Amino acid sequence: MSDRVPILKIGNVLLVSIQTDLEDQTVLDLQEDLSERIVATGARGVVIDISALEIVDSFVGRMLATTASVSRVLDAETVVIGMRPAVAMTLVELGLSLGGVRTALNLEQGLVMLRRAARLGPALG
Amino acid sequence: MSDRVPILKIGNVLLVSIQTDLEDQTVLDLQEDLSERIVATGARGVVIDISALEIVDSFVGRMLATTASVSRVLDAETVVIGMRPAVAMTLVELGLSLGGVRTALNLEQGLVMLRRAARLGPALG
Repeated sequence: MSDRVPILKIGNVLLVSIQTDLEDQTVLDLQEDLSERIVATGARGVVIDISALEIVDSFVGRMLATTASVSRVLDAETVVIGMRPAVAMTLVELGLSLGGVRTALNLEQGLVMLRRAARLGPALG
Repeated sequence: MSDRVPILKIGNVLLVSIQTDLEDQTVLDLQEDLSERIVATGARGVVIDISALEIVDSFVGRMLATTASVSRVLDAETVVIGMRPAVAMTLVELGLSLGGVRTALNLEQGLVMLRRAARLGPALG
């Protein structure tokens, strides 16, 4: 089993589904891979699916915020999708923020949000 | 961490990215979840991403074939994407087949294949 998180491409958008426990090295690898893919493909958007995550602590939250910041520097907007209700409640209770990361209910709404945000055009599915 | 594999939806297609070690119960859960989602959404296609898998043995191969068969009964075609070159070589060397499962290089080509196969129409991304 690879410890790299796969990055899929749909039109101008890169899709990452986080399913494994995020260790430090995995996060660093993901951020490096994602940055390279954004540059290589000219992607204008990134969707990060966290529907498999039952817990989003400050480490994961920081990872999401950092990923979004790096992507934005590379001219790609980031949307986090699939957050569980319990995760949202815990985030609020703990006073954690996602550093201004956009969220959407699911992949399709995330793609709509990205299309509106960046005017990605009809190439986006 | 949930032991359920997330199922994402893009237009008429359901997308599954397999990243965790596939244990018996995980596979059963995935096939049940996928069948329910196909029926609930009326999806016409299923894309299974195995780019994270470094090994595809007969167990995984059978799982892919079974999933495709179940989906087909529910009127959804299945395409497996992201197979690593080493995996393809091992499959051939071991004489394993994927039971007639379609494969495509990546997500975009998989979506094209599904659109052609089932004439899913422009709603498909």
